[in-house]
Amino acid sequence: MTLHLVLAESALELVPESMQGHPAARAHARRLGRPASETLLDVSWHYAAMRDAPDAHRRGRPDLVHQAVLAAVATPLYRNGLVRLYVHTLRDVVVRFGGGVRVPKSYHRFEGLFAKLLREGRAGGEEALLEAGGGTIPSLLREIGPSERVGLSRAGLPVACRRMAAGLGEEACVVVGGFQRGGFSDSTAGALDRICSISPRPLETHLVVGRLLYDIEAELYGPEMDGGAPA
Amino acid sequence: MTLHLVLAESALELVPESMQGHPAARAHARRLGRPASETLLDVSWHYAAMRDAPDAHRRGRPDLVHQAVLAAVATPLYRNGLVRLYVHTLRDVVVRFGGGVRVPKSYHRFEGLFAKLLREGRAGGEEALLEAGGGTIPSLLREIGPSERVGLSRAGLPVACRRMAAGLGEEACVVVGGFQRGGFSDSTAGALDRICSISPRPLETHLVVGRLLYDIEAELYGPEMDGGAPA
Repeated sequence: MTLHLVLAESALELVPESMQGHPAARAHARRLGRPASETLLDVSWHYAAMRDAPDAHRRGRPDLVHQAVLAAVATPLYRNGLVRLYVHTLRDVVVRFGGGVRVPKSYHRFEGLFAKLLREGRAGGEEALLEAGGGTIPSLLREIGPSERVGLSRAGLPVACRRMAAGLGEEACVVVGGFQRGGFSDSTAGALDRICSISPRPLETHLVVGRLLYDIEAELYGPEMDGGAPA
Repeated sequence: MTLHLVLAESALELVPESMQGHPAARAHARRLGRPASETLLDVSWHYAAMRDAPDAHRRGRPDLVHQAVLAAVATPLYRNGLVRLYVHTLRDVVVRFGGGVRVPKSYHRFEGLFAKLLREGRAGGEEALLEAGGGTIPSLLREIGPSERVGLSRAGLPVACRRMAAGLGEEACVVVGGFQRGGFSDSTAGALDRICSISPRPLETHLVVGRLLYDIEAELYGPEMDGGAPA
């Protein structure tokens, strides 16, 4: 089986041109030793520059994306090559993870790598293990062509994660929001077969990713092999 | 029930006096705008200063501690007040988390908070929601006085995490290594009733914490309530 895992509308982008001259963006860029245009928008540094921007509450959370990606790539399921990971951003960029890509655990290294990736379209050496290019959720799902498209959102139909995971087909795609709060856009929701809610209250993205992959592993490897076989 | 969750021998400390004069430590301190003595030791910045130090491979991973703490505090079980969290460090400091403490998701805010905490012994405002003081694993376990003391390590007896979680008593303490690789010290191992291995290969600390708490939730709330009830 292959699970296609998509973080959708993720709060990941470079500092946009309109904010690059703001004192907060310039100060942070100086600290990193790069032009502001080559740094990631981050509400914890750029709050003053962002607060009046459209969709401010859905932008500038690279920390959240980092934690969700780490939750995925640390799993035996991913390390066994059974997960294809995609990060779609609010600005319709899609980051594709090559097989077995490792992601820096240190935040500042992640920031540097993903800023370069968003600017240059690829990172990770000659093998281009990470690639970024334009793409919407509907276009990405058409390209993947999965057996089913399941979104996870508190607005969906309630179902235990374990039960949902047990019912996924061999080539399923699961879409999880890569933002802090709120639901999927109409465009994303319209491209899904169904939306499930695995908890009556909001859960952080890294938690949802971790639980989903753990439940799929338990289903695949059996309860006595939750950790997966040695590589 | 209350689960006492201990990260043991964690790779978390201030830059020690012997490294404060190293160019790598001074450069990083300048970047943060604080003296090196008030910054966390971090191998991704301080590698050149650390590499010949004793136990170098078990030190300077505040990113790992951050991710493991986030994996715990994001869970419904923690948010429902059923987890008491402790971070014990390789240098025998114990950080105690007050009920319902939220931890910064942004790494640089975490770094600032925990550096202050390790220097001053408390952080989080007048309620002192985070406290740090001297303590070993044996002394911490004596103070907690749990119904059982279970360590998780690859060197332990193989058991599925789900099965282990189902067998935990009402006031159990589970100890997980807060370091990158290797096993518990003899001092830690000697204070435990038993050591379990939930996977035949090494798993990252945040993954172990997330899976453990998820399995305890499923046991406590039932499979249809994996996410826990609304707060």
